[in-house]
Amino acid sequence: MYNFEYFTPTKVVFGRGTESKVGQLVAEQNCKKVLIHYGKGSVIRSGLLDRVKKSLDEYQVDYIELGGAVPNPRLSLVYEGIELCRKEGVDFVLAVGGGSAIDSGKAIGYGVANEGDVWDFYCKKRQAKGCLPIGVVLTLSATGSEMSNSSVITREEDWNKRGYNCDYGRPKFAIMNPELTMTLPDYQTACGCTDIMMHTMERYFTNGGNMEITDSIAEALLRTVLANAKILMKEPDNYDARAEVMWAGSLAHNGLTGCGNDGGDFASHALEHEIGGMFDVAHGAGLAAIWGSWARYVYQDCLPRFKRYALNVMGVKEEGTDEEIALKGIEAMEDFYREIRMPVTIRELGIEPTDDQLKEMAHKCAAACNNKKGSAKILKEEDMLAIYRMAL
Amino acid sequence: MYNFEYFTPTKVVFGRGTESKVGQLVAEQNCKKVLIHYGKGSVIRSGLLDRVKKSLDEYQVDYIELGGAVPNPRLSLVYEGIELCRKEGVDFVLAVGGGSAIDSGKAIGYGVANEGDVWDFYCKKRQAKGCLPIGVVLTLSATGSEMSNSSVITREEDWNKRGYNCDYGRPKFAIMNPELTMTLPDYQTACGCTDIMMHTMERYFTNGGNMEITDSIAEALLRTVLANAKILMKEPDNYDARAEVMWAGSLAHNGLTGCGNDGGDFASHALEHEIGGMFDVAHGAGLAAIWGSWARYVYQDCLPRFKRYALNVMGVKEEGTDEEIALKGIEAMEDFYREIRMPVTIRELGIEPTDDQLKEMAHKCAAACNNKKGSAKILKEEDMLAIYRMAL
Repeated sequence: MYNFEYFTPTKVVFGRGTESKVGQLVAEQNCKKVLIHYGKGSVIRSGLLDRVKKSLDEYQVDYIELGGAVPNPRLSLVYEGIELCRKEGVDFVLAVGGGSAIDSGKAIGYGVANEGDVWDFYCKKRQAKGCLPIGVVLTLSATGSEMSNSSVITREEDWNKRGYNCDYGRPKFAIMNPELTMTLPDYQTACGCTDIMMHTMERYFTNGGNMEITDSIAEALLRTVLANAKILMKEPDNYDARAEVMWAGSLAHNGLTGCGNDGGDFASHALEHEIGGMFDVAHGAGLAAIWGSWARYVYQDCLPRFKRYALNVMGVKEEGTDEEIALKGIEAMEDFYREIRMPVTIRELGIEPTDDQLKEMAHKCAAACNNKKGSAKILKEEDMLAIYRMAL
Repeated sequence: MYNFEYFTPTKVVFGRGTESKVGQLVAEQNCKKVLIHYGKGSVIRSGLLDRVKKSLDEYQVDYIELGGAVPNPRLSLVYEGIELCRKEGVDFVLAVGGGSAIDSGKAIGYGVANEGDVWDFYCKKRQAKGCLPIGVVLTLSATGSEMSNSSVITREEDWNKRGYNCDYGRPKFAIMNPELTMTLPDYQTACGCTDIMMHTMERYFTNGGNMEITDSIAEALLRTVLANAKILMKEPDNYDARAEVMWAGSLAHNGLTGCGNDGGDFASHALEHEIGGMFDVAHGAGLAAIWGSWARYVYQDCLPRFKRYALNVMGVKEEGTDEEIALKGIEAMEDFYREIRMPVTIRELGIEPTDDQLKEMAHKCAAACNNKKGSAKILKEEDMLAIYRMAL
């Protein structure tokens, strides 16, 4: 068991109709001008943006808007947002959307609150000394960014996708109304459930420092998402299932499911980042496409955890050798991905990388982590390439 | 499922040797003068107080001291602390101890930051408009006060014991080193484990608005404490078991295990408060003494939850009627209390209340909640008296 810090200052306001509280929550932050940051047009078409503005108006909160955040959010839009905020004297960023709008909003917040190029933080060249306060109205359960210290940005000039973790970026509040996720296409819902589970699985498959309470909370969370993802494929309007998944999404990535461990594995995320950066696939789908191959490549180095996962999460019966049980757990997980119509190979993502592209991805992935990634098994560049080839 | 808010801004610094970070953590709060508030002499004898002062000295943080917090912490000491803080210009309260020092510290914080009598808040006469910032070095796993918005104070003149919940009082940071709890007498360890479990059980036994993820996290927490409390009765120096219980203590009462429900039952706490207020017994022991009688009095009105508790927490086999399963769960819980040498009746607390005293307790308990307490079953004064008599 390792020492740990746990810090989740985000005030969560969860449930039906809670977006009407956004004006009050922003006003409590004593800010003068808000940047409302969102993605494509769905928040406009659904009327959510109007409801948010109405609530801000009620509290006499001034605001400007910036739309256009896309999945794998782009650095160019971040630069645009920073310039806009400086010009307009913005001192609060309100992200209305999913992980893309939130991550992009966090990056804008870092950019405004610090001198120099914001990309430096994502390249690990230096640390931010602050961030504009961030608020969230969540419309998609997936990245957990609404309560996490993470954000991920892609630089278009070389499709370089990099994450930055910093407590200054933790949102001040997150409004979570599960009803707002009901109109999502099934594919996005499934991608979100995959991402949520992976945030906890990355923390679960480790070779060091586990706590029983952390593990059992992680398993409880994973079982909940597993069951409710299946429900949502049949009943996308099921409020309770939407709510279970939404709250799981925040808890999966706010630190709770990693307390006491060695920091987690996170190799699947690193491997997926290169696929997403080069081919712009949906993050959750990319994770599903890579996970089975990663698991088969590493499970013998982390057998007790893979066995426990099979028994306690996937419901595999305790029969046969530990290896057999572990492999059955991996198979059951891939069956689950198929059931929610997620890919289990890279080609099922609808892309066809050449071997040279796989080599480039492995090279970039290794470069981003000093050629050392993971805890279940520590991966080097050749391991990464082997997994990409297995997953093809 | 109900809408909910979840707000746990306390920065947790958990693990071996973490008390050496107290100077840095206080300095980050930009405060000028600290009141170090503690209980009897154990923090002096163990050398902890000296280590805390050394760390504060390293960061040039000025401080004064106030000891004397006792279990069921007293209003008179709170008044003394408020006067001292005002006289000395204290702007930060550092509680070094368990729930008594923390709750007393919170009350001092409310008193300094607000005009008028601090007892008004505990009588629900008015709401606090602020609180001095609070920090904690935890030495006892029990009340969860290190991360909660709760504090409980006893007024000696009429032995009136009252709680106040307010987010201003949530500690800014909590240093949790499980090693600091190793020297506790077994009785205090067992009382702590009982209290921890009860904070989650109060939220679990409800008739409204449950979420699956909340329930399964609650069950994971309860099973963890159950197992590790037994370990600690045999191996009080077991670091991992101390750590599991300590972290469970914070999670049990920070709101996590109540998300989505109707606010919880909390009748066992209300019933115990009157025992503790009149007879000054240890809070955890008082809870154990009352719980079985409460459970038998109410279980038929909340049968699905009692059945689920029996199966998922106590490991009762699914045989017989729901009522039989529920009763076996209650029996198993009482057996657990006996195993960790907790009382299961009021007399086993070493006290012998008269029937008039039971009536007085029921009357005070009912008065404190407008004659309506609970969710598993809503209790009135006559129900409270019946439970006290059953528990005698």
